[in-house]
Parts: sequence; C-alpha cells; structure tokens
Amino acid sequence: MEELKQAILNKGVVLSDGVLKVDAFLNHQIDPVLALQIGKEFGSRFINSRITKVLTIESSGIAPGLTTALELKTPLIFARKRKSLTLSSNLLTAKVHSFTKNETNEITVSKDFINEGDNVLIIDDFLANGEAALGLASLVEQANATVAGIGIVIEKSFQPGRNKLEEAGYVVESLARLSSLVDKKVHFLEEISE
Amino acid sequence: MEELKQAILNKGVVLSDGVLKVDAFLNHQIDPVLALQIGKEFGSRFINSRITKVLTIESSGIAPGLTTALELKTPLIFARKRKSLTLSSNLLTAKVHSFTKNETNEITVSKDFINEGDNVLIIDDFLANGEAALGLASLVEQANATVAGIGIVIEKSFQPGRNKLEEAGYVVESLARLSSLVDKKVHFLEEISE
Repeated sequence: MEELKQAILNKGVVLSDGVLKVDAFLNHQIDPVLALQIGKEFGSRFINSRITKVLTIESSGIAPGLTTALELKTPLIFARKRKSLTLSSNLLTAKVHSFTKNETNEITVSKDFINEGDNVLIIDDFLANGEAALGLASLVEQANATVAGIGIVIEKSFQPGRNKLEEAGYVVESLARLSSLVDKKVHFLEEISE
Repeated sequence: MEELKQAILNKGVVLSDGVLKVDAFLNHQIDPVLALQIGKEFGSRFINSRITKVLTIESSGIAPGLTTALELKTPLIFARKRKSLTLSSNLLTAKVHSFTKNETNEITVSKDFINEGDNVLIIDDFLANGEAALGLASLVEQANATVAGIGIVIEKSFQPGRNKLEEAGYVVESLARLSSLVDKKVHFLEEISE
C-alpha cells in the first residue's frame, strides 16, 4: 500500500534493528486520512469474506480497526488488556506475551459481542511474533466463531509472526512488509504482485 | 444528538445510579456509523474554532476522536495511560485520578505532537468528575498551546465535571447530557434549544 509505505519512509523512525517507531502517524498521533485509506484497503482485501465483526486490541488497533469496520459495514470490537470495571464476568480471555515489553497480559472480550457463527476479521497495527494475533484468534474460537483472516498494518517479516499464523491456518494480509530495519533504515520486502 | 440518545436508550445498561454501561456501541463494541455521526456532530460544533489538533485519551476516546479529526481535517493524538516503550523521555505528563477505579494514572503525550500555537479540541467519551479532561487540558497548556474546547460524548450532568471545566474557563460541548440514572433508567437533561 503505497501511501502507507511513504508514511513509513517519511515519518517512521528506526530505533533499533527490531523497533520501528510510527508514533507520528499510526499509534500516538494518527493521520485520519491515512487511517481511512488503511480501512479501505483492508475492506477491499476482505470484501468477499462475508465478515460479520472486526476484532482488534487496544489501543493502537482501534483506529485501523474502526476504519475497516466502517468499510465492511460491521461492528468493531476491541479486546482490553486490562479488565474494565463495567465489564461483567462474562468474558472470553487469552494470555498474550509481549516480547518487547517482556510481560504477559490477559486480554479480554465480552462474550456478548462474539457469537457462534460470526466470521471475524482480526486487525492489528503490528505483526512481530504473532502473540497478539494468536490471542485474538483464540478469543474468536472460544466463542465458536470463525477467524476469516488477519489484517496487519505493518508486518516485520524478519520476525516469526507470519509463519506462526500461517502454520496455524490463518490467512494473513499485511499492508506493509518490512524485510529488515538494519542500519537504521526501513527495507520493504519485494513483492512480485506489486 | 438524537442517534446517540436512541443508542443510549436502546443499548445502554444502567448498572447503578452512577454507572451507565455503553459497551454495546461506544467503548468495547463500537458502532462505526454512530462513531462517524458523532465525529460529524463535533465537527459542526467546532467548525469555526480553527482547530489544529484533536486530543483524546486511550482507549475509549480514540474512536470518537478519530472521526472528529477526520471531519476537522486535523491529526488525532491520543494520550497514553501507561508509558510506551518507544515513547522517548520527551513527554508532557499530568496526573489523572479516576474516582470509579480509585486509582491515579499518569497520562502522557509526546512533546513532538502538541506545539506552541496549536488550537486543540479535547474529545472524550464520558464526563463525570472532569479529571481526565482537566489532565488533557493541562498537557495542552504545558505545551503553550490553547484549549479550543472540550467535546464530550456522554455527560453525567449530575456529577461535578461540567461545572469544574466551565469554572476553569473551558467551552464544553456534550452530545448527550444525563440528568440522572436513578431507578435503573436513563434521564436526559431537558435542553431548551433542542
């Protein structure tokens, strides 16, 4: 997705070989026009998948999740990393380990909002080790719903996340795929189809 | 705002005299069409305020903040309740006490994204005691920027937040104003102009 690649090149900051900071347009300050384009792109990639719900995780997934849900005309649900006071005990839960933060969070979604028969598109801002996406997929499957696919804004293709998700049988669509971040530079994966 | 009032009446759940649960359409599952209408309404109320940035707080403020920013053609910034690993030390910070959770969070925004001369619209999902809005306003003023106004999706008018914000000199626009939640029912404040 060209607009996204340009934003990454122009406004992204490579902090280390593993960390790309996109605070200027994706996960602290958000460019709403780019967010809308991201939603349209996910929408077009999953237009024939009969999606009934979009599921993401707070906080950085909410903007691309919302614009995707708008495009696919479905509700958006965001999983919480901390339990809400007004969420009842009626919860789906999964453990998600963050390698960058070296902590394990329990993520939760109310059982009210993912139901048997739902066809769920999972959206997240980054794919690295795949832990968040696998946790979200577990929530969907606990509800006897189907994971229709996983849409990722920025995939670190040099980390094992995509392989783990594909081995688990999930369709993964990433809008930007990074082959490396060495020498403080962003390198995109060459994609034959683009 | 009529669509919002209808959603509150049809999908909101009064948990107690002080707590309205809007998990079905605003802050866990999100109705993207309603979120867009909320953004259009805030946009029309602040169209002449020459807003340069919309500021909200994770997580529930992000959806209405994003649609408002889209409408006003500005970036959205969301304050974090927990420090991000990739946020530098270059931070604006304020303490925000939550009466419902009985905890104090330090909220943060990178100094990179609110600058002197910015004219900032603050958006949040709920107004009760006004602590979050005052914390966000403090971040704006620490940056020598101006608070152009505070837009609230649901105001608990029976709690002191609005008075505190108005006494501090801020313009407050709320899309739904609740006069009480007694008897497990939602009562809206009568507004002469509607």
